[in-house]
Amino acid sequence: MTKANSNYDKLPQTYLFVEIAKRTAAYQAKNPKVKIMRLGIGNTTEPLGPIVTKGLVGGAKKLEDVNTYSGYGDEQGDNRLRSALAAWYQKLGVKLEPGEIFVSDGAKPDTANIESIFDKREVIAICDPVYPVYRDSNIIAGRKIVYLACTDKNEFFPELPKEKVGLVYLCSPNNPTGAVASRAQLKKFVDWANKNKAVIIFDAAYSFFVSDKKLPRSIYEIPGAKRCAIEISSFSKFAGFCGVRLGWTVVPHELGKLNALWNRRQTTMFNGASNIAQEGGLAALSPAGQKECLKTVSYYMENAKIIKNGLVRLGLVVFGGENAPYLWVKTPKGLDSWSFFDKLLSEAHVVGTPGAGFGKYGEGYFRLSAFGHRADIVAAVESIKKNLML
Amino acid sequence: MTKANSNYDKLPQTYLFVEIAKRTAAYQAKNPKVKIMRLGIGNTTEPLGPIVTKGLVGGAKKLEDVNTYSGYGDEQGDNRLRSALAAWYQKLGVKLEPGEIFVSDGAKPDTANIESIFDKREVIAICDPVYPVYRDSNIIAGRKIVYLACTDKNEFFPELPKEKVGLVYLCSPNNPTGAVASRAQLKKFVDWANKNKAVIIFDAAYSFFVSDKKLPRSIYEIPGAKRCAIEISSFSKFAGFCGVRLGWTVVPHELGKLNALWNRRQTTMFNGASNIAQEGGLAALSPAGQKECLKTVSYYMENAKIIKNGLVRLGLVVFGGENAPYLWVKTPKGLDSWSFFDKLLSEAHVVGTPGAGFGKYGEGYFRLSAFGHRADIVAAVESIKKNLML
Repeated sequence: MTKANSNYDKLPQTYLFVEIAKRTAAYQAKNPKVKIMRLGIGNTTEPLGPIVTKGLVGGAKKLEDVNTYSGYGDEQGDNRLRSALAAWYQKLGVKLEPGEIFVSDGAKPDTANIESIFDKREVIAICDPVYPVYRDSNIIAGRKIVYLACTDKNEFFPELPKEKVGLVYLCSPNNPTGAVASRAQLKKFVDWANKNKAVIIFDAAYSFFVSDKKLPRSIYEIPGAKRCAIEISSFSKFAGFCGVRLGWTVVPHELGKLNALWNRRQTTMFNGASNIAQEGGLAALSPAGQKECLKTVSYYMENAKIIKNGLVRLGLVVFGGENAPYLWVKTPKGLDSWSFFDKLLSEAHVVGTPGAGFGKYGEGYFRLSAFGHRADIVAAVESIKKNLML
Repeated sequence: MTKANSNYDKLPQTYLFVEIAKRTAAYQAKNPKVKIMRLGIGNTTEPLGPIVTKGLVGGAKKLEDVNTYSGYGDEQGDNRLRSALAAWYQKLGVKLEPGEIFVSDGAKPDTANIESIFDKREVIAICDPVYPVYRDSNIIAGRKIVYLACTDKNEFFPELPKEKVGLVYLCSPNNPTGAVASRAQLKKFVDWANKNKAVIIFDAAYSFFVSDKKLPRSIYEIPGAKRCAIEISSFSKFAGFCGVRLGWTVVPHELGKLNALWNRRQTTMFNGASNIAQEGGLAALSPAGQKECLKTVSYYMENAKIIKNGLVRLGLVVFGGENAPYLWVKTPKGLDSWSFFDKLLSEAHVVGTPGAGFGKYGEGYFRLSAFGHRADIVAAVESIKKNLML
């Protein structure tokens, strides 16, 4: 029989969300009248505004008219969108050419596929806890992985790798911890990467949640980053495009042949983001579109504040939730994260995500998400305040 | 410096379309008044009908309403669409479960990514001439490739591989030759694969162009194919979705763990096709939508007939163009395919694709495409009839 890629056997089984669903269903079956509330998912819930919707609808309608119909576009993305993204970076003081920006169908595939352009023998470093895609894509590729602990002792931002590594994945604002890297923290990694000729893969998918002007929204705000960093970002959370699928990856020309390699990877193995989604992206980046999208971002951040205030008032220790849509809650009384899951579900009827599901340093923590309708968020927090026995 | 994946250096430089553009531009610069006509591109040109457009517009508008908004869907695709595809296969007499059908953003990424689930030491066989994505994705993965010659002597359908290979890529209706495999031809490969425990990757992206009831539209119409074949297909040419991005891959349960592996690949490294595109796909698969789409397919096939009749009347030998949108023209007087390119451009002002660009057995052939507006197709054929010196 044709042999399968045995690296898939090395993947940790992703029982996390399966196990959450199982425990939730079991509780619901035993308690059919209980209304279970969810604060666990990282999925947008609020509808699009009229400007972005008009962009998407207009993109679809263009296809009905022979004069505006389009088939395959450039795999790298519509030049208008690449230019609009370059203009958006310009406002952060970051100068990029459209040819350095590759439009895609989202940050997840890009963070998973970027490893393709690197030698399989390069060791990579990722944070623990971590968004599992960085890990799993590199396990499938057969790479050695070094884990960098992120705990309250280092403000959930890793120390520099001690081993020799070729690639480091960083994510800020962070999923799952909600930590946001400062300029000084990022500078430490940029300087290290330039000194050690390593490459940083910077996942900025949540950058639109940063409202504090002191915090960087792009790694290219750090001097020297264009010589060592690839940045991946997304319209998913900014524009509500989780299901629409649109993202981008920046590979600066200063990274030498990596720009040409990513271009080759994308032109060979990808066929461009949906032309409809790209019209929506253009609408979202228009001045009025940005205003519309940021209103929804503010709505989620208000949710985050409601959750954080509610839990802090209960005496819980809560990280994140400021400039990031995730809250990282220290489980009370030293409970492990699955025990806290069970407690929260049975006492307050609220479902969250056990931190242990994101890595061993996630043990003792719990992820809550600010995505959700306001009434549901308020009800969940009220239920926690009223019913959780601490 | 972090080492790059050196397999990229082994990729043949894809000068084909760059060289075509260069020669065309040079000719236009010297002859600014000439109107150059294109019969070379494999890109749809005709607008969508009202039913499919309504599906896409409806998909976009759902996102504006809090009650119908959706974020992330299942990476494997909307269950309604997976079921609609299973129902479509049922009409061919092929029984598939929705869980065997994985919706994606197109056949190109799927044909490129499918190699991920196989051992890198497996040797693969591809046709020559060939759609380059099968070759390039496997070169990037570092695999050994065996080429199977497709010539007029074997009706452009390959002989069985002589070497031991684990995977064979087949494409029918074929890009670039326009050849359509018969049941007997496919059966030969299915039986060989089952006997040798090999896997066939079957690219059926052009199956909707098959109108001859005797010809198979899915490899699963061949007994035993579910035990050895993965089928990849697309809405690009059927529904005019080249730019909308929607396709699917079938991995039957009979293939054992390969179904679970592709599921793991897609859930780890992909985040689902656009929800808007999927609504369009559902509309295209509705009875009225299929009728609407097949009208456009017939339009392109009428183009193919016009090209084929015109060239045959000139005494040229033309393959394909029946049940396939590509025509594979034998270059006259033993001209090599680039010389014929220059001749066609300078004498008839028509641009096509030199067969040599698809592999060494493409030398001496020329690919023409039936995608285009009728008036442009007619004008190009008239110009060839009037001006090409044979």
